[in-house]
Amino acid sequence: MKIREYGITIGHLPTGVHNCITDVEGVAVGHETIREDLEDGEVIRTGVTAILPHDGNLFREKVIGASHVINGFGKTAGLVQVDELGTIESPIMLTNTLAVGTVLQSTVKEMLTQSPEIGDTTGTVNVVVGECNDGHLNTIRHIAVREEHVQRALQNASTTRAEEGAVGAGTGMVCFGHKGGIGSSSRCTDHYTVGVLVLSNFGKEQDFEYARYKGRHTEEAIAETDGSIIIVLATDAPVTQRQLKRIIQRCSIGLGKTGAYFSNGSGDITIGFSTAHRIPHQSDEKIALHVLRDDEEEMYQLFKAAAEATEEAILNSLAQAETTTGRKGRIVEAYPFRK
Amino acid sequence: MKIREYGITIGHLPTGVHNCITDVEGVAVGHETIREDLEDGEVIRTGVTAILPHDGNLFREKVIGASHVINGFGKTAGLVQVDELGTIESPIMLTNTLAVGTVLQSTVKEMLTQSPEIGDTTGTVNVVVGECNDGHLNTIRHIAVREEHVQRALQNASTTRAEEGAVGAGTGMVCFGHKGGIGSSSRCTDHYTVGVLVLSNFGKEQDFEYARYKGRHTEEAIAETDGSIIIVLATDAPVTQRQLKRIIQRCSIGLGKTGAYFSNGSGDITIGFSTAHRIPHQSDEKIALHVLRDDEEEMYQLFKAAAEATEEAILNSLAQAETTTGRKGRIVEAYPFRK
Amino acid sequence: MKIREYGITIGHLPTGVHNCITDVEGVAVGHETIREDLEDGEVIRTGVTAILPHDGNLFREKVIGASHVINGFGKTAGLVQVDELGTIESPIMLTNTLAVGTVLQSTVKEMLTQSPEIGDTTGTVNVVVGECNDGHLNTIRHIAVREEHVQRALQNASTTRAEEGAVGAGTGMVCFGHKGGIGSSSRCTDHYTVGVLVLSNFGKEQDFEYARYKGRHTEEAIAETDGSIIIVLATDAPVTQRQLKRIIQRCSIGLGKTGAYFSNGSGDITIGFSTAHRIPHQSDEKIALHVLRDDEEEMYQLFKAAAEATEEAILNSLAQAETTTGRKGRIVEAYPFRK
Amino acid sequence: MKIREYGITIGHLPTGVHNCITDVEGVAVGHETIREDLEDGEVIRTGVTAILPHDGNLFREKVIGASHVINGFGKTAGLVQVDELGTIESPIMLTNTLAVGTVLQSTVKEMLTQSPEIGDTTGTVNVVVGECNDGHLNTIRHIAVREEHVQRALQNASTTRAEEGAVGAGTGMVCFGHKGGIGSSSRCTDHYTVGVLVLSNFGKEQDFEYARYKGRHTEEAIAETDGSIIIVLATDAPVTQRQLKRIIQRCSIGLGKTGAYFSNGSGDITIGFSTAHRIPHQSDEKIALHVLRDDEEEMYQLFKAAAEATEEAILNSLAQAETTTGRKGRIVEAYPFRK
Repeated sequence: MKIREYGITIGHLPTGVHNCITDVEGVAVGHETIREDLEDGEVIRTGVTAILPHDGNLFREKVIGASHVINGFGKTAGLVQVDELGTIESPIMLTNTLAVGTVLQSTVKEMLTQSPEIGDTTGTVNVVVGECNDGHLNTIRHIAVREEHVQRALQNASTTRAEEGAVGAGTGMVCFGHKGGIGSSSRCTDHYTVGVLVLSNFGKEQDFEYARYKGRHTEEAIAETDGSIIIVLATDAPVTQRQLKRIIQRCSIGLGKTGAYFSNGSGDITIGFSTAHRIPHQSDEKIALHVLRDDEEEMYQLFKAAAEATEEAILNSLAQAETTTGRKGRIVEAYPFRK
Repeated sequence: MKIREYGITIGHLPTGVHNCITDVEGVAVGHETIREDLEDGEVIRTGVTAILPHDGNLFREKVIGASHVINGFGKTAGLVQVDELGTIESPIMLTNTLAVGTVLQSTVKEMLTQSPEIGDTTGTVNVVVGECNDGHLNTIRHIAVREEHVQRALQNASTTRAEEGAVGAGTGMVCFGHKGGIGSSSRCTDHYTVGVLVLSNFGKEQDFEYARYKGRHTEEAIAETDGSIIIVLATDAPVTQRQLKRIIQRCSIGLGKTGAYFSNGSGDITIGFSTAHRIPHQSDEKIALHVLRDDEEEMYQLFKAAAEATEEAILNSLAQAETTTGRKGRIVEAYPFRK
Repeated sequence: MKIREYGITIGHLPTGVHNCITDVEGVAVGHETIREDLEDGEVIRTGVTAILPHDGNLFREKVIGASHVINGFGKTAGLVQVDELGTIESPIMLTNTLAVGTVLQSTVKEMLTQSPEIGDTTGTVNVVVGECNDGHLNTIRHIAVREEHVQRALQNASTTRAEEGAVGAGTGMVCFGHKGGIGSSSRCTDHYTVGVLVLSNFGKEQDFEYARYKGRHTEEAIAETDGSIIIVLATDAPVTQRQLKRIIQRCSIGLGKTGAYFSNGSGDITIGFSTAHRIPHQSDEKIALHVLRDDEEEMYQLFKAAAEATEEAILNSLAQAETTTGRKGRIVEAYPFRK
Repeated sequence: MKIREYGITIGHLPTGVHNCITDVEGVAVGHETIREDLEDGEVIRTGVTAILPHDGNLFREKVIGASHVINGFGKTAGLVQVDELGTIESPIMLTNTLAVGTVLQSTVKEMLTQSPEIGDTTGTVNVVVGECNDGHLNTIRHIAVREEHVQRALQNASTTRAEEGAVGAGTGMVCFGHKGGIGSSSRCTDHYTVGVLVLSNFGKEQDFEYARYKGRHTEEAIAETDGSIIIVLATDAPVTQRQLKRIIQRCSIGLGKTGAYFSNGSGDITIGFSTAHRIPHQSDEKIALHVLRDDEEEMYQLFKAAAEATEEAILNSLAQAETTTGRKGRIVEAYPFRK
C-alpha cells in the first residue's frame, strides 16, 4: 500500500495520476530483482533498477540533467559529465554499491548496441549509476549482479506505475531500521509534473519523525546507521541546468523532514532531468530553450513539488516494502504504519 | 519568551546554559538597533548585529571557518576568502541588504584601528557581512546604517545570553508572515557545544509547519514571500574546514523543518566557525590540528546539533520578536505561540 | 603603447577594432584616478574603474553572468548571487581591497537613484565589486576612495577604447615586479567578439615568462609577491550561464602563460557576462534563449579567445603603465619592453 | 627518451631522482598493455595503469586525497567520495573510456580479496578510475579490458621509475596529433617531493606550443581534436584536503602552457594525494595533522612544482611514445623532438 492509503498526506500539491515518477510523460522504470539462497548459506537480496527519461535513443536525444550531492559518502558514477554539460544521455541505473562497475559496463554495452556510432564515428557515452549499500541483508561481497540482470531491468522498463518496496535495486535496502527500498511519488504544479523515485537505505530508527506520520517507536528496528539514498527527480518543466539544479536541491528538504541527518556514511545524491527539451547529439543548429523565469509562481511550486514528492517517495518506500529475511538470518521488518 | 517556555522542544540533544550561541565559550554578540521616524513620514526599522568568535584580535588569531550557500539570492560579502583559506578573521556582521557596503567599510576601519599592521607591513583583511532585506517595515532605500552604528554593535558585544527578536539586524525582519529577526539556540554533544544565531526573514505563512509547533494558521500574517536567512554556527569542536562545512550543511535540515522551501528570492546562507584551533596570522611553525574523525559518534551528534539548533533558533526569532509597526503604516504581528 | 606595438602578438585569433573590451558592442569602461600627496607624507595612488555591460538600466535589463574563482584570497563582493541566478544587474566595479565597502555602497546609491522601485516596490540590487591590494604604492589604510570618485568613474564610462595602465583602479597596482594595472584586449571569432579587461597586481618578477615576450630579467623589479588579478570578460556570444562559466574558466590559461602560479595570497577572480540576451527584471513571459551548442567550432574559438585576450590584456596592463612613485618613496618601474 | 634528453627543461625546481611520480616515497606504478590484432581486422591498442599511493593496505590506511575537474567531459569514477571525505582508499586506475566499468569492478574485487571485512563487518570501498578515449587507434567498442588485465596492472606495480609512452592505459592515446599516453615528472621543493603522472590524449596539433619546446609544425599530425587528460599528482608534503586541492589546481597551469584550451570534449581531471598522513579506516583516536601554513614559501614551491611537473609529464608522454599503428590502418607518429 502507498502511504496515502494509511491516511497520511504530504504537503499541499496534488499528485499525478499514479503518484509515481512515471507520471512525467515518457519516463519509464524497470526493475530486476535478485533473490537467491546460495549453497554456502549466503543469501542474495539485491537487484537493478533503471529509470529511462524517454523511450527514444537517449544518446542521440539527450535531456537536460543536473546532480546535487547532499552528502558524498557514495560511489555514484557519471556525475562529472552531467555537471559539466548539463545533459543526461543514458538510463539512470541503480544497484548495490559493489556492483556499480558491472552495471556501468553492462549499460555501456547496451548503449553501444543501440548506437553503432558510439566510439566509432562519434565519441563515447556517459552512463549514470547510483548505489546504496544493501550489505545488511545481501551478501554484497558476492557480486551477484550480472550483465543479464542489467539487460532485464532495461527490458522491463515501463511507463506504467512503477513497482515499489523490496524490488529491483531496493530488494535488500534498509531505511530507518525497517525495510526500505524503492519508493516513488509525484506532484502537479499549475502546468507541469514532478516525479521522484528514491532508493532508500538510510537513517536510524530513533531519528524517524514518526510523530509526523502517525507512527510510533518500534522494538523490531535494526540498529544499522549509515546508509544512503539516491533521489531521482524527473520533470517536464522547461528549465536550464542551473534551474534544474535549484529544483533538485529542494529534495533535501523532504529528506530532512523524514528525520535524516545526512549522516557521515550516507551517500545522499540527487539526480534530476527535465524532458521539456531534447538536445540532439549532433546538429548544425543552435539550441533554442524556452524556459521558466526564476521568479515566477510556477518555479516556487516546482521547489515545493521536489520537497513534497521526495518526502512521500521515502514514505512509500517504507510503506510498500515487505519484511525481508537476509544473510545471517537477519530479518528486517516492514514499518508498521497504521490506518 | 524563548520557544521552550511555550512547551515546545526541538530534537533530543540538551541545550547549553543559555540556549544561545554564546554558550560556545568566548563567542560574543552585540546589537545596535536603529528605530527612527523620519520627518518625511518614512520610518527606519533596521540595525546591525556583530558575532565575535573570540575576544582577542581576530585578525592575528583567526578561527577555522566555512560557508555554505543554501540559496544564493543574497549579497553576503566575504565568502570567497573563507572558502579558499578556511579561516575567518573578522567579526561576522549582519545588517540589511542595502547597508552591506557601509557595514563592510566601517568594520574594515575598526579592524585597521585594532591592527596597525594591516595594509602596511602585512596584507589586507577579509570582513564577512551577511544581510536580509527588511524593506517591508524599513525604508531600506534610506541607508540609515552609519559608521557609528557599526561601532556600537561591536562595542555592545557580550558573551552573555544574546538579546533576540526585533533587535539589531533583526529589527525590521519578517518570518513566515510574522515578526522575525534574531534568534539563537545551542546544543551540547558529549564533549562539545554548538551554537546557532539566525537572522530570520523568510517564508510564506502558509508554509509554516505550525502543526509541528502547536501553532495555527493566523489571519494577520502578511503576504511577503521572498526573504532570506543568515545562519551563523559556532562550535568548539575541533574540526577542519571540510568537516566544518559538513556540519553547517546540516543547518538546512532545521530550516526545512520549519517550512522553508529555500524560495527563489531567499538568500539562505550559512557561515560557521570553530574556536578549537586558532590560526595565527603570522608564524614560523606548522599548523597542528587535532581533529575529530568523520565516522565517530561525536560527529553524528554535531550534525544533529546543527539541525536542531537552527530549527530552534528560528523559532526563538519568532517567539522573541514583538509586533512591529513600520513604513507605510505596516504592522507585522508577533506569532501567537500558545502555551 | 599596446604590446602589439612592440611586435608581440598573442595567439591566432584576430582582435577587434580597438583590441579592447569595448569592442563588444555596448560595453563601456570608466575610470576615476586618485593621486594625492597627503600632508602627513603619505601618498594616494588608487582609483575606481567601472565596466558597464550596456548603456541601459542594468537592473531592469540584466545580462547573463558568471564567475570563476581561480584563487580565492580576495574580497570581491556580489558573486554569491551571480552564481545562483546567472545574471549581472549592476556595473562591475574595480577598486582597492580596503575600499570595497565604499564602492559597493556608493554604487548601490547610484542604482537606487536610477531605479526608484528598488527596495520599494521590488527587491534589492546586487552590485559586483572586484579588488586588488595596491598597498605597495598606495596608503591603502587611508581610505581615499569616496562616493564622488565612484560617481565619476560611472560618469566617465565610454564605449570608446578604454584607457589602460596606471589609471582608475589600476593606478597603484604592481604586476611581475613592475607597474601593472588596467589592461584590455579583444578577439573575434567567426561570428562573435570577446573582450577582456584586467586589473593586474600579481606575480613575482622571477616568474614572468619574459622569454615568451622578447623580454628580459630586470634589476629594477620590486620583490612584492602576493597580489591579485581581476579578469572581466565580455562577449556577445549567445550562451547560458553554464556555457559562459566554461568560457571564463579558460581565462586562467592566459594568466598561467604569463608566468602566474595563482599564488597563495593572490585573489584571482574572473567575472564574465554575455550581452546576447537581456533578462528583464520583471516580465510575464518565459525566457527564450537561442544559444550555441557546446560542441560547435564557434565554442572552441570562444575558449581560445578567452585565453588569448586574457594573456594580451595582462601584457597591455604592463606595456601601458608608466613608472609610478608611491608611498615611502617607492618607485615601481614600467616594464622595459623592447621593439 | 625523456624530454630533458632533448635539452628541454621545464621550470626552475630540481627534479627527483627518476623525474617520475615514483620519486614520492612509496608510490608505485603498474602497467598492463593490451595489443591485439583481432580476426575481424579490428585492432586493440589499449590497457590499464595503476597508481598506488603506498604499498600497504590502502583501504585500512587511507591517504589524504582531492580532485579538481578542469573540464568535466569525462567519465572518471570515484570522485564524489574523494571530495566529501578528503581521502583516497584505493589504487588510482587509468584505462579507456568504455572500460571504466570493468576496471572499477575488477579493482573492487581485488580490494575485497585484500580486506575480507569490506562489505561484511565494515562498509564498502571507493575505487577511483580515470579514463581517456583511445578510440582513434583502438577498437574501443570491443571492450578488450578484462579482469586479468586489471590484476596484472596491479601486480606489475613498482616503485622504480615508471615506464612511459604507449604503455598501459596510454597504449592508444593521441596528444597534439601525435602519439601520447603515459608521461611522468617530479619536482623537489626545499623539503618535499611532488610527482605527476599523466595520461595524455588531448589537443590539436595546431595548438601545440612547439616554439616553447624547440619543436615545429609537422605534416604528419592527425586531426583528432577532442581528447582528455588525467593528471595524477602525488606528494609527501603534509597538507589538508583543502590545501591539496589548491596544489592540484595549479596542474592546469602546466597543461595550459603546452597549448591546451581545455576543449569542450576533453575530460581534464586532476586527482591528488598526499602520503604524509595515513588515516586509519578504524580508530578510537582523533586525527592529528601537522600541516604546512598556506603562506609559507614551501607552499609557493609546491604550487610551482605542480605546474612544472604537469607540463614536463605531458612532454614526456610525447617524447616517450613510439609511433603506433591502430584500427583502420591509422598511424599516429611520435612527435619529432630534436636535440
